[in-house]
Amino acid sequence: MRSRQPIGGAVSAKYGVHSEVGRLRQVIVHRPDLSLERLTPDNRDELLYDDVLWVRRAQIEHDAFVAMMRERGIEVFYHQELLAEALGTGPEAKRQAVERAVTELSVGPALVDDIRNELASWDGTKLARHLIGGLTKQELLDETQRVGFDGKSLVAAMADPGAFVLPPLPNSLYQRDPAAWLYEGVSLNPLFFHARRLETLNQTIVYRHHPMFADAGFAYWYPPMGDDGRFDEEDFGQASIEGGDMMPIGNGAVAIGVSERTTSRMIEHLAQSLFAAEAATRVIAVNIPPNRSYMHLDTVFTLLDVNKATGYPPVVDEAEVYSVRPGDKEGTLEVHQDKSLAAAFEDALGIGHLDIIPTGGDDHQQAREQWDSGSNFVALEPGVVVGYHKNEFTNRKLREHDVEVIEIEGFELGKGRGGGHCMTCPILRDPV
Amino acid sequence: MRSRQPIGGAVSAKYGVHSEVGRLRQVIVHRPDLSLERLTPDNRDELLYDDVLWVRRAQIEHDAFVAMMRERGIEVFYHQELLAEALGTGPEAKRQAVERAVTELSVGPALVDDIRNELASWDGTKLARHLIGGLTKQELLDETQRVGFDGKSLVAAMADPGAFVLPPLPNSLYQRDPAAWLYEGVSLNPLFFHARRLETLNQTIVYRHHPMFADAGFAYWYPPMGDDGRFDEEDFGQASIEGGDMMPIGNGAVAIGVSERTTSRMIEHLAQSLFAAEAATRVIAVNIPPNRSYMHLDTVFTLLDVNKATGYPPVVDEAEVYSVRPGDKEGTLEVHQDKSLAAAFEDALGIGHLDIIPTGGDDHQQAREQWDSGSNFVALEPGVVVGYHKNEFTNRKLREHDVEVIEIEGFELGKGRGGGHCMTCPILRDPV
Amino acid sequence: MRSRQPIGGAVSAKYGVHSEVGRLRQVIVHRPDLSLERLTPDNRDELLYDDVLWVRRAQIEHDAFVAMMRERGIEVFYHQELLAEALGTGPEAKRQAVERAVTELSVGPALVDDIRNELASWDGTKLARHLIGGLTKQELLDETQRVGFDGKSLVAAMADPGAFVLPPLPNSLYQRDPAAWLYEGVSLNPLFFHARRLETLNQTIVYRHHPMFADAGFAYWYPPMGDDGRFDEEDFGQASIEGGDMMPIGNGAVAIGVSERTTSRMIEHLAQSLFAAEAATRVIAVNIPPNRSYMHLDTVFTLLDVNKATGYPPVVDEAEVYSVRPGDKEGTLEVHQDKSLAAAFEDALGIGHLDIIPTGGDDHQQAREQWDSGSNFVALEPGVVVGYHKNEFTNRKLREHDVEVIEIEGFELGKGRGGGHCMTCPILRDPV
Amino acid sequence: MRSRQPIGGAVSAKYGVHSEVGRLRQVIVHRPDLSLERLTPDNRDELLYDDVLWVRRAQIEHDAFVAMMRERGIEVFYHQELLAEALGTGPEAKRQAVERAVTELSVGPALVDDIRNELASWDGTKLARHLIGGLTKQELLDETQRVGFDGKSLVAAMADPGAFVLPPLPNSLYQRDPAAWLYEGVSLNPLFFHARRLETLNQTIVYRHHPMFADAGFAYWYPPMGDDGRFDEEDFGQASIEGGDMMPIGNGAVAIGVSERTTSRMIEHLAQSLFAAEAATRVIAVNIPPNRSYMHLDTVFTLLDVNKATGYPPVVDEAEVYSVRPGDKEGTLEVHQDKSLAAAFEDALGIGHLDIIPTGGDDHQQAREQWDSGSNFVALEPGVVVGYHKNEFTNRKLREHDVEVIEIEGFELGKGRGGGHCMTCPILRDPV
Repeated sequence: MRSRQPIGGAVSAKYGVHSEVGRLRQVIVHRPDLSLERLTPDNRDELLYDDVLWVRRAQIEHDAFVAMMRERGIEVFYHQELLAEALGTGPEAKRQAVERAVTELSVGPALVDDIRNELASWDGTKLARHLIGGLTKQELLDETQRVGFDGKSLVAAMADPGAFVLPPLPNSLYQRDPAAWLYEGVSLNPLFFHARRLETLNQTIVYRHHPMFADAGFAYWYPPMGDDGRFDEEDFGQASIEGGDMMPIGNGAVAIGVSERTTSRMIEHLAQSLFAAEAATRVIAVNIPPNRSYMHLDTVFTLLDVNKATGYPPVVDEAEVYSVRPGDKEGTLEVHQDKSLAAAFEDALGIGHLDIIPTGGDDHQQAREQWDSGSNFVALEPGVVVGYHKNEFTNRKLREHDVEVIEIEGFELGKGRGGGHCMTCPILRDPV
Repeated sequence: MRSRQPIGGAVSAKYGVHSEVGRLRQVIVHRPDLSLERLTPDNRDELLYDDVLWVRRAQIEHDAFVAMMRERGIEVFYHQELLAEALGTGPEAKRQAVERAVTELSVGPALVDDIRNELASWDGTKLARHLIGGLTKQELLDETQRVGFDGKSLVAAMADPGAFVLPPLPNSLYQRDPAAWLYEGVSLNPLFFHARRLETLNQTIVYRHHPMFADAGFAYWYPPMGDDGRFDEEDFGQASIEGGDMMPIGNGAVAIGVSERTTSRMIEHLAQSLFAAEAATRVIAVNIPPNRSYMHLDTVFTLLDVNKATGYPPVVDEAEVYSVRPGDKEGTLEVHQDKSLAAAFEDALGIGHLDIIPTGGDDHQQAREQWDSGSNFVALEPGVVVGYHKNEFTNRKLREHDVEVIEIEGFELGKGRGGGHCMTCPILRDPV
Repeated sequence: MRSRQPIGGAVSAKYGVHSEVGRLRQVIVHRPDLSLERLTPDNRDELLYDDVLWVRRAQIEHDAFVAMMRERGIEVFYHQELLAEALGTGPEAKRQAVERAVTELSVGPALVDDIRNELASWDGTKLARHLIGGLTKQELLDETQRVGFDGKSLVAAMADPGAFVLPPLPNSLYQRDPAAWLYEGVSLNPLFFHARRLETLNQTIVYRHHPMFADAGFAYWYPPMGDDGRFDEEDFGQASIEGGDMMPIGNGAVAIGVSERTTSRMIEHLAQSLFAAEAATRVIAVNIPPNRSYMHLDTVFTLLDVNKATGYPPVVDEAEVYSVRPGDKEGTLEVHQDKSLAAAFEDALGIGHLDIIPTGGDDHQQAREQWDSGSNFVALEPGVVVGYHKNEFTNRKLREHDVEVIEIEGFELGKGRGGGHCMTCPILRDPV
Repeated sequence: MRSRQPIGGAVSAKYGVHSEVGRLRQVIVHRPDLSLERLTPDNRDELLYDDVLWVRRAQIEHDAFVAMMRERGIEVFYHQELLAEALGTGPEAKRQAVERAVTELSVGPALVDDIRNELASWDGTKLARHLIGGLTKQELLDETQRVGFDGKSLVAAMADPGAFVLPPLPNSLYQRDPAAWLYEGVSLNPLFFHARRLETLNQTIVYRHHPMFADAGFAYWYPPMGDDGRFDEEDFGQASIEGGDMMPIGNGAVAIGVSERTTSRMIEHLAQSLFAAEAATRVIAVNIPPNRSYMHLDTVFTLLDVNKATGYPPVVDEAEVYSVRPGDKEGTLEVHQDKSLAAAFEDALGIGHLDIIPTGGDDHQQAREQWDSGSNFVALEPGVVVGYHKNEFTNRKLREHDVEVIEIEGFELGKGRGGGHCMTCPILRDPV
């Protein structure tokens, strides 16, 4: 087995996420962009959206969300800006990005060099825009002022003008998933759907090359790195893990959903990595049904306060829960089944009682609000959370339990089935 | 770009497929086995079968097919026997097979060593049986006489007894796809569906380790190999190519379908590899609609004789066809569109007229017989072909065109939508 | 063949729709209600919605739409109020509604009388609310103060508390479809999906019993009526026609889409009925592909002004168009193919040129806006139309062609894939 | 509620099915025919087949099945012959068939008379062939020697030559479903899928007009009949019941599955009808999951002998079971839940123990054989049953329980997911 040690003995304190509900200080988000303009009725299923989005309106909703966080003193970074800046640091960052996004297998060997050279000649801003927003054959031809590639490439000859040379990544809106901080390190996640796999490449470029992160000395929980500093993440087979399932709940514990998109195999990897660095002592695996409605743990359950959470009863009440701890020998694990999600969290957090506030309304209404991200709150500090305005029944219930709910509009933002928790990648958050 | 040179300067004459219709001398097939007993109504879609199979009957049908070929002097090898023998050559073959079939990402890091060790302790016959037929958690526990793995592995703790540790590979029945000979070399193909990807691993073990092949000195058109002799085929992304689309039609030409399962990107790779070795001078890419009915070129079109073929008119008449030839500079390609499939073949083969006999019957009947592998004939020699008995209309029509049709039963064999061409991997066939 | 004569020799002038773009004077709409609260992620497909709706917000959007129309002098009626008033006219209206909505075949013979009696005891307002909004077993039990029906009815014994005794009709939001005025008569349409069939029953109650309509003396184009004044519309088999496909374009012509939901068989019926009453002299049948994106003609094409329309080019440019006219003998038809949609309309309307303004933006954007009801405008008077705010590209284009576009919000209203044209049932509109 | 009395006071003894396992004396079957030649890969889903059939082979399999029954002294009638003879009795039978199969709503009003007249001019044999086998526009034109109908009918003008004027009814192969004998009466069943609804019309013609049945004086349990002797079955809404769910198990009891295709509402109707005639005293409703694998009760459970049955454990062990008995007042019902299927049958039949032999093999194999009609046996006499050869594991197990299993081939016959029980409609069977 390859070594999974984090980089550096002395772990940095510059970034780190020490809980789900402690004061949020720094966060990365992605403003709706070109990638969402690519959605059509025909490709939306493949791109994992239930509907097309009105991008201008999505931007307004998103801008209001960001402004509210900034007013509360939270430092908000934009993913696309970070990516542009990382790419702008020099040819190496661009080279890595371009070589991984454009390969013999993605565009064919006949054109791979031409396209890589063209893209590498762009500035960071333009390249970042298309690494996220996608690039069509026609757009490339317009850029290069070429008559065409059709005579030298079978791939080009058989492609429509609207065919994607770089695929759009509209799920970049949900920054929670491709990169996830667990205490003082980050996991760059292999995502379940091929439609999202290149999102992780973009994250890798940011963390490896952006001045904010390049020398910050934190750990990488995943993927493992070779001695050459090169990640070894090329082929994940059918194993995957997504940030929406990963929660550093505090007190050395991490909760991870086993879901449509996160496999128990990847949780073992991550547990070994965390335990080896003594960054965590317990991983709580929560088994949820593998369907789109409950795509991640954070679509049915999020923490709101030190001892409060909200959960969608039909899933949370029935979930099988297992705790993984370090085994006797180095590198081994010990696995025990827990009585329930609540019992496992209470024990792990050392709190007497976790108040899991159920989704609001009757059975029908609960199903409706769960679907509309009504369990997907992100805490700004203990007891202060952000959720969609439309989930009236649940928001009211949380307030009855003395949780402050800040409402944001999500007519467009929610169409990929994500809320405030999904849209944010905290990089600095206090313990509780 | 990596070097794509075939191994060895002097290419062997021991194996080679020099046409689609010349005398067939040696062929590999797979007898229906354990993998097909794994099919259930629930998993059949995922395993790419329209129906479950009655395995005993499928064996009878397959045995008759093999006996007929042997009576005609064709040497027939069984894939599972070759794999068992290859694995029996020593620990290295077993190690490679086990390490690739069982990984940290397939079973989790906690058990990967235990399971690899257990499997490596099996003899070649038993290991081959399960590499093709699959292995459940319960079967593994029964073998190892262990109480269980659940306490040390989250993967094990959350798995049902019937969960697969090794997935079954029921499409091994169709030996045409994972390995394909084109003239004096073989391509070990990255297959489109994950459900089939491990089939290619089994082929690799056979070709690299079986005494028949290990030192036979032929070329590998795909994948490229490093200096360490290790294949570099781990990650194919979403590029794929399958043998059912690949036809060495003779005279230095290769026809390849661009289909649901074969991408133009992979055709460029293969073309470069063939041209570099001067093994071919023209690749004819035939674009067919990406749906299950027409999954490969050989489901809508096969050659029957020097100047005869059969084709399903709604697809073959409409297909766009492109010819790829070596470009001016080494490693480059030249691409031109052809007028039609017939025109491209006539020109490439230097024959005056290719008689494409249409599928039999009216529109309804044509669609029925195409579906039942009525275009999927395999030639034993020029003008002598094997097809399913049930395609009465097409068989009659071929006979009217002086083609000898040998009928085999395919009640069970055809349920994965494959016929004689799909079930056979020729390794030695004469030119015409 | 049954007689299809309209009621009464002297046709009333009280109601009538004489064009698609003349001044709109009276219209029926449906305010979002209980039926939309019934939508859940699980039942939305069956109920023909792509997403669940936030009902409170949908009401706000709808109220603004209605207020705008009223400000412009249009008289707006609410379907649910009309239904309540019609039911309140006496026991006969209630009896007809209840007997048709609750049958031996819908609730089983054991309970049919009990349930009918219970519902018939409700006042019109409450009954109207549940005829549209649906009624669960639990709600019924709560109403009746009964311990339960389980001991006397197998249907009841096997039903969940949330099972529907009366199905909700959330597509009532789109008043265009179940009843459609063509000149001085109305068609009560057999709808395609069973989920919508009871909507027409509710319309029938309104038109037959509401004082506004009961004695107004207009024609019924469909269904035919027996001598007893009873409609004979029980079994439509698989024939259907929907108002979204039906357009009284003026000058004695009616355009009707042949779509997923409207069959050519029903168009023949309607043509016979219109021709017999000399209410129309030409029916233009426009063939559009049978898929959800283009469910009705008005989702790809609407008239905006005397000589202006908007159309989604990929459908409208390719549509086959046929004109049906009265044949030589009474009751017969004459059918001719037209050159194009534009040609047929120009000829029928006697205008030199119909300017069909294409959907806005590039191919991607066109597909996005068509999907978001970007071709579905309703005219308030010639050249003044209502559409969703979100279709920015199309709205801008229409303005460039001197069309006044009044924008309404449709975040929630559009989730069933309908816009202003779909939501309105004009009952009085001027000719142009 | 309408009267549900059977015809005639003195019930005939000529036909009647008094058990599921008593000696079988007379049975109706349907030989594979033209309707099955209509199946294509594209229409098979709509026509409810998993695959296309090789009709010639299906006939061979079916002929062997019939020959075996005849050798054992069972009188076997062919549905198509009965239908031809019934149609041949005079113009009234033909008129009824043609008027119901061809309506204004099925072919449009413009052609309905022409087509009815043409069909009514055919002899019974030809008409029966096409009422079951379907009729295309082209076939009709060929018959009538007409240039075409396109000029007078919009329906015709827009139809392809291969469009069906009469739809094919390939599920006629499964004679169990559209008509079912329960003791001394028959139920003509409204079937669930529209693709099958006309099968019941064909049955009606046979029972009302064939000399064998016309004056035989048995009861009709469904549909109810008016005083004019005309059935009142036009509109079943979404209520349905199918013979595969209906079992006259003896001793005055009837078992009926509540399934994908049979509703509890229709069971109430039937129970009232049976109780009113004192033909049964108990209906046992067996709730099975509504999916295709378990489409009818007889796909998961059949009786084999006086006290033996076979059942698919995952369904049969979990099934909720209710008994319906006559209530205190005429026309009312009493409903109680039973402990289990076995308990209900033991009590109803007055037998000490019902031995429910589980499907053979391990979990995988059970699922495979259930799918292949491995629970679908038809008894020829107590303890002697007919099943498909391919279900080796189950057949072996039955023999171990001293059941005689007669094996028939079902490569083709089973592709619509039916076995011996599905293919037979017993009309005379002894009690046990």
